[in-house]
Amino acid sequence: MRGVVMHAPGDVRVEDRDDPTIIAPTDAIIRVSATCICGSDLWPYRGIEHVHEPAAMGHEYVGIVEEVGSEVQNITPGQFVVGSFFASDNTCEICQAGYHSSCIHRVGVGSIGTQAQLARIPLADGTLVATPELPPADLIPTLLAASDVLGTGWFGAVAAEAGPGKTVAVVGDGAVGLLAVLAAKQLGAQRIIAMSRHEPRQKLAREYGATDIVEERGDAGVAKIKELTGGLGAHSVIEAVGTQESMMQAIRSTRPGGHVGYLGVAHNVQLPGEELFFSHVHLHGGPAPVRRFLPELIDLIWRRKINPGKVFDLTLPLEQAAEGYKAMDERRAIKTLLTL
Amino acid sequence: MRGVVMHAPGDVRVEDRDDPTIIAPTDAIIRVSATCICGSDLWPYRGIEHVHEPAAMGHEYVGIVEEVGSEVQNITPGQFVVGSFFASDNTCEICQAGYHSSCIHRVGVGSIGTQAQLARIPLADGTLVATPELPPADLIPTLLAASDVLGTGWFGAVAAEAGPGKTVAVVGDGAVGLLAVLAAKQLGAQRIIAMSRHEPRQKLAREYGATDIVEERGDAGVAKIKELTGGLGAHSVIEAVGTQESMMQAIRSTRPGGHVGYLGVAHNVQLPGEELFFSHVHLHGGPAPVRRFLPELIDLIWRRKINPGKVFDLTLPLEQAAEGYKAMDERRAIKTLLTL
Repeated sequence: MRGVVMHAPGDVRVEDRDDPTIIAPTDAIIRVSATCICGSDLWPYRGIEHVHEPAAMGHEYVGIVEEVGSEVQNITPGQFVVGSFFASDNTCEICQAGYHSSCIHRVGVGSIGTQAQLARIPLADGTLVATPELPPADLIPTLLAASDVLGTGWFGAVAAEAGPGKTVAVVGDGAVGLLAVLAAKQLGAQRIIAMSRHEPRQKLAREYGATDIVEERGDAGVAKIKELTGGLGAHSVIEAVGTQESMMQAIRSTRPGGHVGYLGVAHNVQLPGEELFFSHVHLHGGPAPVRRFLPELIDLIWRRKINPGKVFDLTLPLEQAAEGYKAMDERRAIKTLLTL
Repeated sequence: MRGVVMHAPGDVRVEDRDDPTIIAPTDAIIRVSATCICGSDLWPYRGIEHVHEPAAMGHEYVGIVEEVGSEVQNITPGQFVVGSFFASDNTCEICQAGYHSSCIHRVGVGSIGTQAQLARIPLADGTLVATPELPPADLIPTLLAASDVLGTGWFGAVAAEAGPGKTVAVVGDGAVGLLAVLAAKQLGAQRIIAMSRHEPRQKLAREYGATDIVEERGDAGVAKIKELTGGLGAHSVIEAVGTQESMMQAIRSTRPGGHVGYLGVAHNVQLPGEELFFSHVHLHGGPAPVRRFLPELIDLIWRRKINPGKVFDLTLPLEQAAEGYKAMDERRAIKTLLTL
């Protein structure tokens, strides 16, 4: 099969890889219908995370089940399925509490690489959620979004306790930040402030429910949020970048007693304990337990209540994955969908 | 009047100070019935916080109202009152959300100094809660505990979401940690693990509801908590120390999706963002909004359902405050009550 392999920062190639096979009796093999490039794929692409050896890439996927292992009971060949970036058993105490991405049996799908024609998905029963039937073509991008960016933005909104009567601010205008806006809207937030200085992203943020746009960043961004909230700060702030500046911007934009939901993988971030102490915020985040939200998100998509697929503003065939990475790295694209 | 003044680390004196007077029309003057020495008073005593000039000490107090300003409506002379270490209006949006210690009009009572015969309490209507009638003498220590350590331990248990079915661990065996055990028990926690290596404190922890004692600290303490919780960590961990080690011990002792409530003033603490991200814990804490809990705590004390006053294992007259500080610094006393 063909699949994306990163050889070094900036060096992404589409190559022949071995077809995956069932290894554990709980595995499934899916034929990938669509996959995409994640903001987190840019960390190694930019050399911020090390690339020690050629690595199969990709952890977002939708597809049709080709084959299942002998212990798989609920997923059957021919089904169209959505999964997420951690395979999870959906039965352990941690999954039952809603933290599938910390499942005691979790397997990172990133190590498998779904930017490929086929993918082996571990713990298929726990990980994959089938759609009611085969989806029409126009729903495929929206279902693919549920696999990571929508589920992640949704988790951020839930972690930040976005809801009726709340003012929500979103730090970061990547696909996750934009879909956090959509999630906050769906969860009933009264006012949603998107922090963005890119006109096309501002436009999509407004379409997804943003009521205000703040272009300022850092201290100036914090001051603007305070100004818009009677000096208090937002009730809920969703952080979707993962840098020291964005984390501090999020914490400082939140009122005492408010909630920060943080989603960006925190690279080289150190949170000052004393400032956090006196900020009085709630802090919660981490790798989104997307599986918790999949049934609800698939339902919303199936009924066409939400259209998260708009974050894909570049669609390329898998063979042109390198250009997809480049376009995202240069911020020419919000998010690249790869067709198969 | 007589009052405690800290001149330098280790140098605590009882001196003549001016009697306080009504400054703002929302002030009250109380005659202090009992006051005490806080763990946080030890930070400057030990030189960890600077002492730039002689400072009036103390922020815990119960007493009888002597005089009120012209705008005070609900508090009247002759009442026995309990307050906390931040004066708050109890009406602003932040107070209404339960975060009185971040009230937009807050005044730190520590700057006033309640280790004295009299104290001026700002925002009396919002800050002070009167008991149903003058309390019997044996309830005075327990009511004094509500003023800070009980309210703080209670906030930690609430922040850590201690409750039915939960396993709660408490890092720190000072008065706050011990009363966090009591709070977790009152909130219905199923299992309460006190982390302590001091026999008298272990004994009081058990009396307050601890089901298990862990003597190990740091990584060994974390390993022990994991061992006691099927490898997962506690649902709720209350941090009541305020050091890098205690914060990391608390975070690492908490299961994914669990809650850390932190109470120790975080001195020189830096939380590593990436570890926090992958820990999946909820983090909340800060200066306890004791006022939120006072009516409920006073009621529990009045009905003799709880006895938080046992944390006072040394009682001295105000004039011997210096010895009270010394005994706590040397860990000969958990907490010193000063009588007047």
